[in-house]
Amino acid sequence: MNSYGRKFRISIFGESHGEAIGVVADGVPAGISLCQADFMKDLERRRSGAAGTTPRRESDLPEIVSGVCDAHTTGAPLAILFRNENTRSSDYSMFREIPRPGHADFVAAVKFGGYNDIRGGGHFSGRITLALVAAGVIAKKILAHNEKSSGIQIKAEITALGGLARERQAEWQPLIEEILKEGDSVGGIVECCCTNVPVGLGEPFFDSLESQISHLLFSIPGVRGVEFGDGFAAAGMRGSEHNDPIADAEGKTARNGAGGINGGISNGNPVIFRVAVKPTSSISRTQKSFNFKNNHIEEFKIKGRHDACIALRVPVIVEAVAAIVLADSI
Amino acid sequence: MNSYGRKFRISIFGESHGEAIGVVADGVPAGISLCQADFMKDLERRRSGAAGTTPRRESDLPEIVSGVCDAHTTGAPLAILFRNENTRSSDYSMFREIPRPGHADFVAAVKFGGYNDIRGGGHFSGRITLALVAAGVIAKKILAHNEKSSGIQIKAEITALGGLARERQAEWQPLIEEILKEGDSVGGIVECCCTNVPVGLGEPFFDSLESQISHLLFSIPGVRGVEFGDGFAAAGMRGSEHNDPIADAEGKTARNGAGGINGGISNGNPVIFRVAVKPTSSISRTQKSFNFKNNHIEEFKIKGRHDACIALRVPVIVEAVAAIVLADSI
Amino acid sequence: MNSYGRKFRISIFGESHGEAIGVVADGVPAGISLCQADFMKDLERRRSGAAGTTPRRESDLPEIVSGVCDAHTTGAPLAILFRNENTRSSDYSMFREIPRPGHADFVAAVKFGGYNDIRGGGHFSGRITLALVAAGVIAKKILAHNEKSSGIQIKAEITALGGLARERQAEWQPLIEEILKEGDSVGGIVECCCTNVPVGLGEPFFDSLESQISHLLFSIPGVRGVEFGDGFAAAGMRGSEHNDPIADAEGKTARNGAGGINGGISNGNPVIFRVAVKPTSSISRTQKSFNFKNNHIEEFKIKGRHDACIALRVPVIVEAVAAIVLADSI
Amino acid sequence: MNSYGRKFRISIFGESHGEAIGVVADGVPAGISLCQADFMKDLERRRSGAAGTTPRRESDLPEIVSGVCDAHTTGAPLAILFRNENTRSSDYSMFREIPRPGHADFVAAVKFGGYNDIRGGGHFSGRITLALVAAGVIAKKILAHNEKSSGIQIKAEITALGGLARERQAEWQPLIEEILKEGDSVGGIVECCCTNVPVGLGEPFFDSLESQISHLLFSIPGVRGVEFGDGFAAAGMRGSEHNDPIADAEGKTARNGAGGINGGISNGNPVIFRVAVKPTSSISRTQKSFNFKNNHIEEFKIKGRHDACIALRVPVIVEAVAAIVLADSI
Repeated sequence: MNSYGRKFRISIFGESHGEAIGVVADGVPAGISLCQADFMKDLERRRSGAAGTTPRRESDLPEIVSGVCDAHTTGAPLAILFRNENTRSSDYSMFREIPRPGHADFVAAVKFGGYNDIRGGGHFSGRITLALVAAGVIAKKILAHNEKSSGIQIKAEITALGGLARERQAEWQPLIEEILKEGDSVGGIVECCCTNVPVGLGEPFFDSLESQISHLLFSIPGVRGVEFGDGFAAAGMRGSEHNDPIADAEGKTARNGAGGINGGISNGNPVIFRVAVKPTSSISRTQKSFNFKNNHIEEFKIKGRHDACIALRVPVIVEAVAAIVLADSI
Repeated sequence: MNSYGRKFRISIFGESHGEAIGVVADGVPAGISLCQADFMKDLERRRSGAAGTTPRRESDLPEIVSGVCDAHTTGAPLAILFRNENTRSSDYSMFREIPRPGHADFVAAVKFGGYNDIRGGGHFSGRITLALVAAGVIAKKILAHNEKSSGIQIKAEITALGGLARERQAEWQPLIEEILKEGDSVGGIVECCCTNVPVGLGEPFFDSLESQISHLLFSIPGVRGVEFGDGFAAAGMRGSEHNDPIADAEGKTARNGAGGINGGISNGNPVIFRVAVKPTSSISRTQKSFNFKNNHIEEFKIKGRHDACIALRVPVIVEAVAAIVLADSI
Repeated sequence: MNSYGRKFRISIFGESHGEAIGVVADGVPAGISLCQADFMKDLERRRSGAAGTTPRRESDLPEIVSGVCDAHTTGAPLAILFRNENTRSSDYSMFREIPRPGHADFVAAVKFGGYNDIRGGGHFSGRITLALVAAGVIAKKILAHNEKSSGIQIKAEITALGGLARERQAEWQPLIEEILKEGDSVGGIVECCCTNVPVGLGEPFFDSLESQISHLLFSIPGVRGVEFGDGFAAAGMRGSEHNDPIADAEGKTARNGAGGINGGISNGNPVIFRVAVKPTSSISRTQKSFNFKNNHIEEFKIKGRHDACIALRVPVIVEAVAAIVLADSI
Repeated sequence: MNSYGRKFRISIFGESHGEAIGVVADGVPAGISLCQADFMKDLERRRSGAAGTTPRRESDLPEIVSGVCDAHTTGAPLAILFRNENTRSSDYSMFREIPRPGHADFVAAVKFGGYNDIRGGGHFSGRITLALVAAGVIAKKILAHNEKSSGIQIKAEITALGGLARERQAEWQPLIEEILKEGDSVGGIVECCCTNVPVGLGEPFFDSLESQISHLLFSIPGVRGVEFGDGFAAAGMRGSEHNDPIADAEGKTARNGAGGINGGISNGNPVIFRVAVKPTSSISRTQKSFNFKNNHIEEFKIKGRHDACIALRVPVIVEAVAAIVLADSI
């Protein structure tokens, strides 16, 4: 289902080239100041524009449809709407016959009997993350409003792009330009760090903080892996290395190899996780796929406007995920 | 909360050294043959016994308390109970003062005001995975019972242990013996492959198959990372490499770099994922931690019985996770 | 929370005098034909206009924001929006000080710290039932689309008004005119009958069909009671009277005193229930209430536009409730 | 599904003549004192024994399987188990062929393909309310433990039996004796009053306090109607009568015709509701039903042990319902 959360509950809707994208957020406490301007900074970070991002331009102005009165939340559900403006339906008709590799065209057609909205990926489009970023803005407001969580800082950034780690960040821009020329795309790794998280968020077992965060992260189109703290490296470590002695009465540990979480519950250290983002599926180069009408493999090209590296736009989405989970856990 | 699932819904309970561990499974179709013997194979795989696993021995006989009549499921909720037998309460009292590194002792004490059951980790113990394995057995039965999913095969195995990949499997046993002598522990990587998964399982966005699987995987104590298909390697690939052309009318792709999932929905290829398991937190070597009574860092030793490598017992749990998610998605 | 349902899940939002009222409906099967015109008949039945209903006029045109492409549902969530047009904010400011009897003014102020939208009752307004009627239209479409439920007919009507039973229906209109003159209001009883409901809908215990239907019915502002089949009369009957012998192989019973439901599950007979609707709380006559500013009881008058009998508009809402529950249960 | 609640979540299981009845309660705060003795008073009230109740005797001793350590709740899920002792499987075999009128025999057979446990009604038995009463005891403990709700008092009692109102209570016992002789049964009405409920519990719309309470009440086998405050009588009242002026700064009203709830939210007045309980379906007199084997209507008698009036045992169950909903709403 297209909803998530227990106390802070969000429901998303919309299609890439339909009328609008939106989110309904329920469980928002009353009395939080909120206006359109509050959304703009995070929305701007998600927007295209930089080299390597799609030339499709949308104003992405959030319309607050409900739940706010006199510039404050009322306790009733918030509905936020983003009208789609720069839509192009015609570019996508051929993908009913030739599903694009790496896209949901094939599975959507099977699952929804061919009734899925194919235009721009429809409900499977990365554009739906607009709703997630808007929900993240609300979640950050909730955290700031609550005394217990008002100190939380959430910051995500790219730590590797196209296989080049942060130490080689100077090579990222030239790589993207090269990739653009080749009509190809690259992936990246995004790391998120949440500081000042109070001890005790998350639940044992099924609603561990890792479970909740990974659940939302793997909703973001293009995410292939998630790890916390030492992550996959922990699998190659000894217990005496990975065990991280508690060093003070606040629970601070030496290395934070657990990524701020023990037994599914925040331990007072920064909550740290990394997300592997695949290279954009839509590339301009000639590709092959199976033509379900002719019943044979065919070469084809995807026209239109794409990101060379969706990872560039993912950090603010990852922050939104962290904020949503934390707001639901407070 | 300690429950998971929408159509096939499981609720777990129990503590390591309490009366019993158990699970209530709701949404089980009527008419599936089920008896105690059906649980034994998977439970045996989870049990200790091999070198590297804890010497604590439990019979782990499942008692079917409800939901089965005349050896078939009735459509009412199943309750499965495992009595704890080999319990030792006395070993754990000191961890109220000196929380064990890598364990939930500290966070549980803060979250539950010191009322948490500290014995053997209580509800945070890896022993709770017994309930998960039992639920997995039921889930496998549901899959086998349903025509649409009866062909599904789920198989998980260790692909790396203590940093040694499968190619060096011969070195695993010597490594564990060395680790045991040192009183230390090692981690490992578990890979799971689900074949014959029909196209169309999972939902777009929040209930993507990856979201659901990772949610449950990160419930397993000690899991630090989860990746699907190419996983973290995808972040370093080009789109032209990672994009995986559809090769036939069933949707089969060349490489299955997507791990059998596009847009959150199974694409007919094997669903493949890997799980990073940390080294066991309980080690016999002298460790340090903060003593909250004396207010200084202290050396201490954990007595009692532990696994040198919990990863050895994880494959059947990972299979249970896959089966539970698939049974809930059918 | 403002959402309901498991498989067919609806989330409502909006305020009486805010931007809009709306609903997001998730779990709608793909391939159902749906357009704006499909909503008009039920919306028209809910609208004001008849004697006894409010003179506030709204066009109540549903905007289908998402989930429909080429006039068919896509399998993605539907969002339906109703813009508010005929709003009057100024009428309501005094009710912050003097909460209207029978309204949510007082409880909302306490619960939401005074941040609730007071205009027209805000999110507590009966106008929110617009969203429920829209969801009901979608639910009826789902029922008609599904072979198992396509024969279901749902029909609700008023059986008593202002204490006058259906036998005295001729007196209803004169009564309402009298009530209007007096500036007062009257209640009524609505009965709903669902025929051709297949055997087996609903679940034992917590999700009994009665539980689900009553849950939604008591969401409708102004509902004071709900009964199934013989209802409250059953409490005065003997078992030999109320027990209703099964009379044929389809499960048909003689009297249907159980209202079509045994053990929480539909039994193949018509599902029949009655709903008690209170008289409209907003009346023009002078009333008393506590003035929280002056701290004493005060006389006051409610200006503005009200229904003399909201029960007149409830039948189509009750039908929507029945359709939503049945669509979620199929 | 057999679970209910958001923050205080209960899952029930068990069959009348199976191994055991039980409940898992999640979301119970840590640090509440709880032992077997705490359950005995309410369980005793539910037990049979009085004239008019079944001669089946069960010790109904609750086994606390998990979630309690050192006589206090730990924050982990509580599992409570009641072993069935006085079971008789043989009495029920014929009801596969001749479903008992008023029972779930027919619907269960259709829904579960004949695999339902028929013995004593299996999972549909009123004996399952044992789990509800146990959950109610825990809920009352939660309310008492929380400063905000510690003053709440919940009291339910019979206000009519066999059509005789409380004013004629002296005639109830003779009526029951007469009914027993006739091999028949009678229904009754149970009223529940919750005092000192703080203002603000419940949610607007779908999770109105009435919605939640009625949801659980209609789970109780044999409930035919539910009304709040003036209830069905409100449908015959004028607004000027039913509107209940607020009389003081605490929100106290003159008549409490709203039953303590406005807009779905508690208003500080006592929460009052009434429940119509049908006469016991199992009666000793000769009855008719359809024989699905012979395909004709047949006379038969139900042997075994039954209540002449289940309403006698319902008050404590109704209190449990109120406590569960309030504990989930705090």
